[in-house]
Amino acid sequence: MQKEIPYKIYLDETELPREWLNLRAFMHEKPAPLLHPQTRRPMTKDELAEIFCDELAKQEADDTSPFIPIPQAVRDFYKMYRPAPLIRAYCLEKELNTPAKIYYKFEGNNTSGSHKLNSAIPQAYYAKAQGLKGVTTETGAGQWGTALAMACAYFKLDCKVFMVKVSYEQKPFRREVMRTYGATVTPSPSVTTAVGREILDRFPGTGGSLGCAISEAVETARSLDGYRYELGSVLNQVLLHQSVIGLESKTALDKYGEKADIIIGCAGGGSNLGGLIAPFMAQQLEGKAKYRFIAVEPASCPTLTRGKYAYDYCDTGKVCPLSKMYTLGSGFIPSASHAGGLRYHGLTSTLSALYNQGLMEARAVKQTEVFSAAEYFARVEGILPAPESAHAIRVAIDEALECKRTGERKTILFGLTGTGYFDMYAYEKFHDGKMQDFSPTDEELKASLAQLPKL
Amino acid sequence: MQKEIPYKIYLDETELPREWLNLRAFMHEKPAPLLHPQTRRPMTKDELAEIFCDELAKQEADDTSPFIPIPQAVRDFYKMYRPAPLIRAYCLEKELNTPAKIYYKFEGNNTSGSHKLNSAIPQAYYAKAQGLKGVTTETGAGQWGTALAMACAYFKLDCKVFMVKVSYEQKPFRREVMRTYGATVTPSPSVTTAVGREILDRFPGTGGSLGCAISEAVETARSLDGYRYELGSVLNQVLLHQSVIGLESKTALDKYGEKADIIIGCAGGGSNLGGLIAPFMAQQLEGKAKYRFIAVEPASCPTLTRGKYAYDYCDTGKVCPLSKMYTLGSGFIPSASHAGGLRYHGLTSTLSALYNQGLMEARAVKQTEVFSAAEYFARVEGILPAPESAHAIRVAIDEALECKRTGERKTILFGLTGTGYFDMYAYEKFHDGKMQDFSPTDEELKASLAQLPKL
Repeated sequence: MQKEIPYKIYLDETELPREWLNLRAFMHEKPAPLLHPQTRRPMTKDELAEIFCDELAKQEADDTSPFIPIPQAVRDFYKMYRPAPLIRAYCLEKELNTPAKIYYKFEGNNTSGSHKLNSAIPQAYYAKAQGLKGVTTETGAGQWGTALAMACAYFKLDCKVFMVKVSYEQKPFRREVMRTYGATVTPSPSVTTAVGREILDRFPGTGGSLGCAISEAVETARSLDGYRYELGSVLNQVLLHQSVIGLESKTALDKYGEKADIIIGCAGGGSNLGGLIAPFMAQQLEGKAKYRFIAVEPASCPTLTRGKYAYDYCDTGKVCPLSKMYTLGSGFIPSASHAGGLRYHGLTSTLSALYNQGLMEARAVKQTEVFSAAEYFARVEGILPAPESAHAIRVAIDEALECKRTGERKTILFGLTGTGYFDMYAYEKFHDGKMQDFSPTDEELKASLAQLPKL
Repeated sequence: MQKEIPYKIYLDETELPREWLNLRAFMHEKPAPLLHPQTRRPMTKDELAEIFCDELAKQEADDTSPFIPIPQAVRDFYKMYRPAPLIRAYCLEKELNTPAKIYYKFEGNNTSGSHKLNSAIPQAYYAKAQGLKGVTTETGAGQWGTALAMACAYFKLDCKVFMVKVSYEQKPFRREVMRTYGATVTPSPSVTTAVGREILDRFPGTGGSLGCAISEAVETARSLDGYRYELGSVLNQVLLHQSVIGLESKTALDKYGEKADIIIGCAGGGSNLGGLIAPFMAQQLEGKAKYRFIAVEPASCPTLTRGKYAYDYCDTGKVCPLSKMYTLGSGFIPSASHAGGLRYHGLTSTLSALYNQGLMEARAVKQTEVFSAAEYFARVEGILPAPESAHAIRVAIDEALECKRTGERKTILFGLTGTGYFDMYAYEKFHDGKMQDFSPTDEELKASLAQLPKL
């Protein structure tokens, strides 16, 4: 007989994963390698190590080790907020009156407010282990910056965050959380870097972009002795660390004899989605199981559904390596959307390759429909979701309603990446009926994609 | 051999308490009864039922039942965020280099951001069970208002919140969370009530106070058919519901063979402290164990350390019953302090009686010292605390440092009532060195206490 499933499945600390799962090692067709922005040749480990810590450069290049041990110090920090609960959405199922079973992995129960901490900790740890003085990074919505600030405080490393100026101004409280953790927060573009000054010259009064903040952070790390750059998404190393999300989810489901039919995650750079699906996709690639994977993106930044699979720059300043990925062009400026974490022009090469190989579906959703799902979910399940996470909620609800129509008792798993406590400005717009839906015109996309680098 | 203690002790859902513990039933000298504001005679159950739901009026008056069953619907909602973790502060102990063992019960892992939800749920449930249309309440810092809005959304009840105007303006995001849960939020004093209009006439441009918002909420509930008033602290019924905090803490400690020596909580109205200490104090009153209990209050609102034990009004408008408690006078206006939840002139009659009987200690702490403890704790333990909760952290750290001095290996338990995500304005002031310490002068207190009602 099946065990009764609690509202929240908490694993023991002893069940915390001891190894990360490296999804690339399971792929029959590997994602294309990063290219050097000048030479256009695959980045060597030494070239990567000029930007990233040595160990992270190694992880970035490793597409053969299926599992990589999690250092003890990282596991100890993980224990402060992990294992994260896998929640059975009993209340949501009842309200929707669906035969579907809905589970979500909740990553918001930590001060960074999202899953970003899972990668911030190892990244800070490896920097410390290498004897570095500090790290630089960029942040948009602020979740990654907060996470890295927390990790650096714990390991006593300096942390310099370039925060997209419009977020810096709209989210002063995010900034203060980072300051609480001792980080220096600079609005980007800034006059502290050549890239920043150039952009300010060309576009005075600009609110900045993630791509520009990345360029500034990389330039700063390169100019300082004992500093490296760290990034919260897009990279292989990040997906590797985020595999704890999927590993814990799978252990929890297995424990109760449950098997997901559909696995849903929001997709910006791909950190959460890549981590959530990792062990399930690995299983499928080994021919041991079959799942439907759905990547959900905002209609305002439709990387998978309307982008192109090609080599492109990861940043506006074109100082970072090129990555083969679905992209809208590194010059693409998404129209105002409140899911700051999903406003990135590309998607990590691993997920891009999987999508290109037909192993994953993608769906673009409108902002107002996302917030209506967010509010509904908050009332029914008691958790106020981040706008990013609410993209996954929207599609999970749609799939559950489809089950209601067909009478199928499917099991749906989605990633609830974080909480929306710092996004109330967006919720306010929604409540006041002032939120609008955006999507780029075909002409806009064509113009942006015409700028892709010619290789 | 003692079991290895994990970072976070999570009880199973089956270990969620089935009964609340009614501390008054264990007291040899009972707290004095509430008095009717006009007749000055003890409130009857019928009189209480004009303000509160029937079942809550009954609980308010009950000082003989040691345990009261938790309704199944309430337990089901509890399961969405409880049992709450009891956390072993390994990192804090290490950083302080103290021989003391430190535990904290963390109540912030829910969208209301605090322990307030523990009482909001039964209060909304009993209102629904009685067939009411809605409830009214007040909120200062916003934690209680958020909690009640969440509970009302779940049980599909209307919820009208009067929010102290200065908080309404300083914390627009708190207001938006309540709106997300469908509550109506009115800045207090407002023109919608006679009390509000009178106060606005006398003090145009006032930022309001908790005492005034209470009066407005009570008046509104009385003027509407099918509405009752609900309160998030001070009352016996609230302490009863909050006993889940202490009950879970005790079960978790017992499970690992641990016994607390010192139990510490912040004290505003007393809801968290009363709930945390309930089962431990009950044990002590039965002669079965001995603990040190410490109530921590802000130096700017020093109810226990500098107030008077006397009957006083619970609200500014004097429409609520009188309670015998430690009080600074219902007209006391605490100077600006960022721990909004602790800016109340009185303390629940139960804790007041225990303090008066010498069963509890009290300590007043300065705001800047509280924030310095808050920041230290955030960096070391990874959780950004609410300013209210940080009062308890301050004293827990002080006690742990005292253990370091004496070499004693004491076990300290404190209540971490909530998170500070909506308090970053205060943190910003602290970071910028603009935070000041306040405490009332002896003359101010004397003047305020001179206004106590003569019985």
